[in-house]
Formats: sequence, C-alpha cells, structure tokens
Amino acid sequence: MKEELIRFPAKDRHISARTILDASDRIRPVIERTRIITNTFLNELWDCEVYVKCEQEQPIGAFKLRGASNFTLQLESVESKSGIVTHSSGNHAQAVAYMAHQLNIPSHVIMPKNANKRKVEAAKKWGAQITFCEPTIESRIETADAVVKKTGGVLIPPFDHEWIVAGQATCALEILEDQPEMEMIFAPLGGGGLLAGSALSAKYFSPNTTVIGTEPEQAQDGFQGLSTGKKVESFVPNTIADGLRTPVGQIPFDILKNLVSDVWLTSEKEIIDWMYRIWTELKLVIEPTSAVPFAAINSQKEKVKGKKIAIIITGGNVDFTQLPGPNET
Amino acid sequence: MKEELIRFPAKDRHISARTILDASDRIRPVIERTRIITNTFLNELWDCEVYVKCEQEQPIGAFKLRGASNFTLQLESVESKSGIVTHSSGNHAQAVAYMAHQLNIPSHVIMPKNANKRKVEAAKKWGAQITFCEPTIESRIETADAVVKKTGGVLIPPFDHEWIVAGQATCALEILEDQPEMEMIFAPLGGGGLLAGSALSAKYFSPNTTVIGTEPEQAQDGFQGLSTGKKVESFVPNTIADGLRTPVGQIPFDILKNLVSDVWLTSEKEIIDWMYRIWTELKLVIEPTSAVPFAAINSQKEKVKGKKIAIIITGGNVDFTQLPGPNET
Repeated sequence: MKEELIRFPAKDRHISARTILDASDRIRPVIERTRIITNTFLNELWDCEVYVKCEQEQPIGAFKLRGASNFTLQLESVESKSGIVTHSSGNHAQAVAYMAHQLNIPSHVIMPKNANKRKVEAAKKWGAQITFCEPTIESRIETADAVVKKTGGVLIPPFDHEWIVAGQATCALEILEDQPEMEMIFAPLGGGGLLAGSALSAKYFSPNTTVIGTEPEQAQDGFQGLSTGKKVESFVPNTIADGLRTPVGQIPFDILKNLVSDVWLTSEKEIIDWMYRIWTELKLVIEPTSAVPFAAINSQKEKVKGKKIAIIITGGNVDFTQLPGPNET
Repeated sequence: MKEELIRFPAKDRHISARTILDASDRIRPVIERTRIITNTFLNELWDCEVYVKCEQEQPIGAFKLRGASNFTLQLESVESKSGIVTHSSGNHAQAVAYMAHQLNIPSHVIMPKNANKRKVEAAKKWGAQITFCEPTIESRIETADAVVKKTGGVLIPPFDHEWIVAGQATCALEILEDQPEMEMIFAPLGGGGLLAGSALSAKYFSPNTTVIGTEPEQAQDGFQGLSTGKKVESFVPNTIADGLRTPVGQIPFDILKNLVSDVWLTSEKEIIDWMYRIWTELKLVIEPTSAVPFAAINSQKEKVKGKKIAIIITGGNVDFTQLPGPNET
C-alpha cells in the first residue's frame, strides 16, 4: 500500500469537486476554519471590496497544514513507526511535523540550509528530525529520497501531488462558501499547490470567479511558464519571499495552464513595504510571501476597482532576526 | 455648558454600574466589540486558561477610543466649530482625532516631541492639528491649556476624568460578559484610566474577579504610589512602552487605591522579548505597552496556574523604524 501511495496511483489523479469536498471533511478536525476579514484601509485605497483570508491563524501559522493533513490522513500506514518525510522551504515542514506530532509518529524534514530560522525552530518544536540540504530543488529531492530509503518513511510531497492540491483547494472553498459572488481571488504562486487548488475550487464552486497568481519579479518562473505554456525548468530565485523560492510543480502547472491566465508581478521593495503596511494597518503579522499579492494588486489597482476580491494571507512565520527594516529597501 | 464640562461637575463624579452600562450603549456605534481569543502556547506555558482581549483591533488600533468616544459623545457643544483638544503620548491623540473626524469638527492634539512617529502620523491622518511639547506631564497640560484658550476647543482629558474611566471600563465589561467566571484580569498601568475602569467593572459585574496592574520597572510610579497609598508626583520614566510614560492620574489613583492591591513589574528586556513572542506565536502586532502584562505574568506564572485569566492587549501601534531587534536587549 505504501509503495502505491508514493507512486501516486493513476486512479486518484483527477481532482474532482467531490475530491475537494471530501478533503474539506477529512481535514476539518485538524485545521482551523480561518477568519475572512475586511478592512477600511484596503477598501478605500483600491476603491473595491477586499476580503482577507487569514491563514496565518492556522495552528502552524500557514495554509500548508491543509495539504499536509489531507495527505497524511489518507495514508493507511501512518501507524508505521517509520513515520513521514518531507522537503520544504519551511511552512510545509512545520505542517508535516505537526501532523506527525498529532499522530504520534516520527517525522523527518529536509530543509534548504538558507531556510527561515523561525520555520526550522518551529518544525523542531513539533519533534521533526531536520536534515539540511543545498537550496535547490534537485538537492531537496535527492536528500529526501535518501532519507526515505534510510528510514522507510512515507514522503509527503510539498506541492506536486493531487492530495496536496486538493487539501490546499479547501482554502478557496471556504472563501467561496463564506463570501459568495466573489469576483477575483489572489494568491501567491510558489510550488503552485495553493493557486492550483484555488483555481479548481473556483471552477467547480464559483465559475465566475477569476483566480490570479502573484509572484516576486525575482522568482517569476511561474509567470514565464504560464506565459509561454511551457514550464520553466531552471530559474534561480532571489527573493525575500522564502515561501516562493520553489519552482512550480508539474501537477499544479498542468492545472494552472488551463485555469489561470494571469500572474501579477511585484518588486522586492514593494514586498517589504507591503509587509510593514499590513502589519501597521491590519495589526496582523504576515510573512514576506503573504505581502506579495497585496503589493502586486497595488500596482494594478485600476483592475480591481469596484470589484469584490479575496486575498489569501498564506502565512505569518517571520524570522524577525533576519528582516530588513522598513526603510532599508 | 462647555465651561461646566471642562470643570467636571461634581454631580457626575461617581462612576456607578449604570454609568458604565450607559457608556457601553453610548459608544457601541463607534467602537468595535473586539475579539477575545485563546491560545495554546500561553495556556501550556503558564498551565492556565488565558483569554486575550484584542483592543489593537479598534479602528484606531487601541482601546483609547472607548474613553474618548464616551467623553466626546456627551458634549453638547460638539457642533461647535472650535472643536476638541487633547494631550497624549499617542493613542488617545488618535482617538480624539478619529472622533473629530467622525463628527466633522476640528481637533488639536498636543504630543510630546519624543512621541512614537507612527502615532503622530495616524493622528494627522484623521486631520488633527499637532503641537509638540516637552515630554513631561506639566508641559503637556500647559501647552494644552494654551491651545484651549486660543481655539476655544473643549479639552478631552487622556485619563484623568470620570467619563474617560467609564469609557475604558467597557473593555473589561465586555470580557466579563463574554467570559463569565473570570478569575483575574491584567492590564497595563499608565495614566490609569483602563485599569481603574477594569477594577470598577469587576467590582460591579463580577466581584470575585481580581484586577491586577502591570508596569515597566522603569515607569513604576503606579506601583510605588499604590504600595504607599500616596500618589507619586514626580517620576522620570524610561521605558520603550510609550503608552506608560504618563503618571497615574488623580481620579484613577483614587479608584485604584480602593480596588487594586497588586501591580506586577517587568524589565525592558522582558517587554521586548514578549512583544516579539506575541508577534511570533499569536501573529498579532502588539505595541511594546501591550507586551507588559504578558512579560509581568511570565515571571510570576505560579500565581496564575490553574486559573482563568484575561489579558487586555491595549494597542498595536508600533513605530517599526524605531524598534530594537529581537536580540538587541
């Protein structure tokens, strides 16, 4: 059974509306149904109706628990003492460690050596064994494979799997349930699990809702890939948005190619400015990755004027020791 | 009429249960009924049941709107073009400016020249005319008197007035309504409006609830005054908690002397550490002042063990340009 799971059996590849609704039921006991808040500052600045989905309020401080729990709770072998394994720039690592802690099984996490220290500490807090690797996707996968071989654990992929995408899709599902007639949903684009899941939820549950990706200019592999229809295989990202340093996965890319036409870009300076602006105006701690959609929308605000839009705050795990000041960009 | 109001007519001096309930009704259209949240991290760390009242979610980012609105909405002369005047280290300034903006009247605010820049900007945003003064209570009162004389505006005192105390009392009233059988309520002690109001609400609506003040060691005029029963008239505070640099007012002091027996102190290092800890664990932006009760409780956590306690987060207006890093203390 475990072997099959690792190979992603073909029968499970299609993510239907039912798949997403089942995921939502499955993970309900584990995740928080996070708040959707409105804010006068944003509404007035952009002259539109803005709804902010607060995924930084998940127990691990990020949406990643949705996919990780949807995957882990489908494993028939979780009782296994060999545990679960993953590679992650940070928030998915915490999600996997948290799930292992809940299920009382071991977890092994491979993180790039430049990972956000706060995220490393948090994964450790939930009992994960950490292995550091080079900050490339090749090194991450290679190291993870070695750890899987050594421990016999099950790999929980960070984004490139249908169960992960279906789990992340539950976030947009909640937005559409709580706020019908949403016109646009914005999310950051890193590995693509959240954006692909959001696009699927919109397609099934609110076909008139447009889903738009947002990316740092300096990590625009998703933008380039979706512009040309051909996934970018090699890109060296250089962004403070540590959650978006991963390339888009194949499964999310194939979904996004059909469902998402727009990726909006933004600069590093705007990302930092907007992180501090959201801290100031909304009193919410968001991480740089979560500032990306706000920054990207702000430079194209004429396109959201008069509309009802949702923005997903993906996480709030900030390493305060390694942050540029508000005036340093 | 205006003259009378400025002189605080004797007939209004008693703050009864009815006074507080009336204040609550009066200010309901203006203020936010803020959330009370629980958090696993705090519950486990202190082995008790912690409820956090989120006053940083008020429209001005602090509880001060309660007192300022309760005062302003009782003025019969607010239609007056001469407007309202106050002196404040920051959050009350914003509250008065916000009320003036809502009522479409002018506001004049006297702030110490070392005031948190973010709070100055926010008061300006609501249209306040700012006058800077020396960072002493004498200079603040003197400058405010001069502005009142010049403009004919009505002074809205920052804490030393029954209407202000009654307004601030509505915060603890909400805590006690939402979470009955609360055993302890913690709040910072600066001018004393919030703490005195909380003590009155506990006395009237939940007599078994103990109200405890918290103060920086380096601004411990309240602690010293309540220890000796004699208000400290001269103290030079030196704390990052800019909301607590004011001396306790006479009216709050007289209330506190009867109702509050304990003020817990904490160090500057603990205040900074706890501000970052709350940002990290609760994903809420709180200002240094709001970290004071958390820091103070942490060093006496055996006293809260097993209890149901509430902590008031007073505000979230942080000047990010002037903040020590998490490791700089």
